[in-house]
Amino acid sequence: MTFEVTILGNSSARPTANKHHAAHVLNVREQFFLIDCGEGTQAQLMRYGIAPARIRAIFISHLHGDHLYGLFPLLSTLNLLGRKTPLPLFAPEPLGELLANVFRRLETELSYEIQYTPVDTRKNCKIFENKTMEVWTIPLRHRVPAAGYLFREKEPELNVRKTAIETYGLGVVQIVAAKRGEAITLPDGRLLPNEALTYRPYAPRSYAYCSDTLYSAKVARIVQGVDLLYHEATYAMAEKALARQRGHSTTLQAAKVASMAGADKLLIGHFSSRYKDESLLETEARTLFPNTFIACEGKTFSIPLKRLQPEE
Amino acid sequence: MTFEVTILGNSSARPTANKHHAAHVLNVREQFFLIDCGEGTQAQLMRYGIAPARIRAIFISHLHGDHLYGLFPLLSTLNLLGRKTPLPLFAPEPLGELLANVFRRLETELSYEIQYTPVDTRKNCKIFENKTMEVWTIPLRHRVPAAGYLFREKEPELNVRKTAIETYGLGVVQIVAAKRGEAITLPDGRLLPNEALTYRPYAPRSYAYCSDTLYSAKVARIVQGVDLLYHEATYAMAEKALARQRGHSTTLQAAKVASMAGADKLLIGHFSSRYKDESLLETEARTLFPNTFIACEGKTFSIPLKRLQPEE
Repeated sequence: MTFEVTILGNSSARPTANKHHAAHVLNVREQFFLIDCGEGTQAQLMRYGIAPARIRAIFISHLHGDHLYGLFPLLSTLNLLGRKTPLPLFAPEPLGELLANVFRRLETELSYEIQYTPVDTRKNCKIFENKTMEVWTIPLRHRVPAAGYLFREKEPELNVRKTAIETYGLGVVQIVAAKRGEAITLPDGRLLPNEALTYRPYAPRSYAYCSDTLYSAKVARIVQGVDLLYHEATYAMAEKALARQRGHSTTLQAAKVASMAGADKLLIGHFSSRYKDESLLETEARTLFPNTFIACEGKTFSIPLKRLQPEE
Repeated sequence: MTFEVTILGNSSARPTANKHHAAHVLNVREQFFLIDCGEGTQAQLMRYGIAPARIRAIFISHLHGDHLYGLFPLLSTLNLLGRKTPLPLFAPEPLGELLANVFRRLETELSYEIQYTPVDTRKNCKIFENKTMEVWTIPLRHRVPAAGYLFREKEPELNVRKTAIETYGLGVVQIVAAKRGEAITLPDGRLLPNEALTYRPYAPRSYAYCSDTLYSAKVARIVQGVDLLYHEATYAMAEKALARQRGHSTTLQAAKVASMAGADKLLIGHFSSRYKDESLLETEARTLFPNTFIACEGKTFSIPLKRLQPEE
């Protein structure tokens, strides 16, 4: 029941052999989701032991080169690997058109279908869903249309308390109804509210990716209660004016969003190249939100499943 | 008086952290020329200590992703660095249009001018020239229009032999004329042919880049006498039929071109990922052309200046 994000790259500066542009991979129970795709992402996937062929869907936050120049070569490699499975791709317009144009001019015919969905960056809506999870857009405020993404496990089916089954002598039909969240009427006419019969087996986990963006209170409302929040912090608090001018956030603004959202843990990154000692940015964010960490390239942040017990 | 090529990447396979797609940098007396630009080229430049800002011109052989996907991000980085110097770019059509399209859709406005020259891949002609060197196209035979590039130092100005100056009592006007290659008529009417008066101070050096291509005898004629020849050898000799089908060469075909051209040294690469032990490919090429080496990523191949002495 894995739920973890691996940082493939997280730099806003010029890429070097050990510093790559934005790309995060979220592993939700062995389904892999790629978020942003800076240059060199496919090599980074290999370096950290994630087969590119396993990518289930791709989410691009905005159309700046440092967040997408690795996409053309990654999609080409999936073609060389003979991928047949369609690949859902979510990004603001006009990425679909841009991709089609590049591949047409390079006479690249893909072996698989790219299922491109343009993202409306002004809306907070569900864009992807399967049995275990869903993905919601987060409107960001940047120099170009930009969206963050909130990944959430679905609510699990309820567990029925053993003590309730025994006490009330529940049959199969009643147990199935209780698992669906329904109340039960006993043969003697007593109504048992669902809460008296069931409990959540575990708390669904969530990860939010917010880059690039100005500080936004709306973001904090949308990601309310998130377990792990990645929020860009391109600048230190001293450069607040510059951050605003360039459509970016400071360390303290990222921490403020995490704090307002009641997040469990905050990851910061996309640091300007002016900061030689990035640990100072971590320290700064921790003054407001202590559970802050740098989204270091190559690091994996796991959210363990918290199994819940019924309150007796 | 440097003349050396550094291999930034040379793989036809999927790129990994230590295996990059095609990109060579030629340093001619501290002028840097980039030839092909696979994904990750800018990080490779940094890794091998070559400042991207120093690139004087870029030459792209053909429009396949593994030879050009590093170009968009490299050009963007030059923009971030605030480059003002125009950048000559040579490539087959429609690269200019493709670049313009990508940058327009990503709203990238460059701080410098890209001086794009479409390359006619059917012709062997001079496309670049400055005081010290010139660049010629080499028609290649691939699945899409493709050109190799021949980089040649210009013939240096002739040196006038000291013995001739003394023997014939030459004055400044006569010396300057002799340096230009002219014959001299002495006051007593004797005609001195230029060869009797001058010698080349050094032999101009040359490097040819031939990738991707089928075997072509025409290539050998064009690169006649080249010092250093890079020729792709995607396949071993046993895969000759496959090489033909895919528009590539074998080890022996690369060696044959080097041999027919009277090259001094041959570099081979662009190997298919099927070869785990690439040294076998080197061994194979050496059976026909002993002075063959693998164009290993990160290696620099220098051609020292050979100073010549007058024959007395």
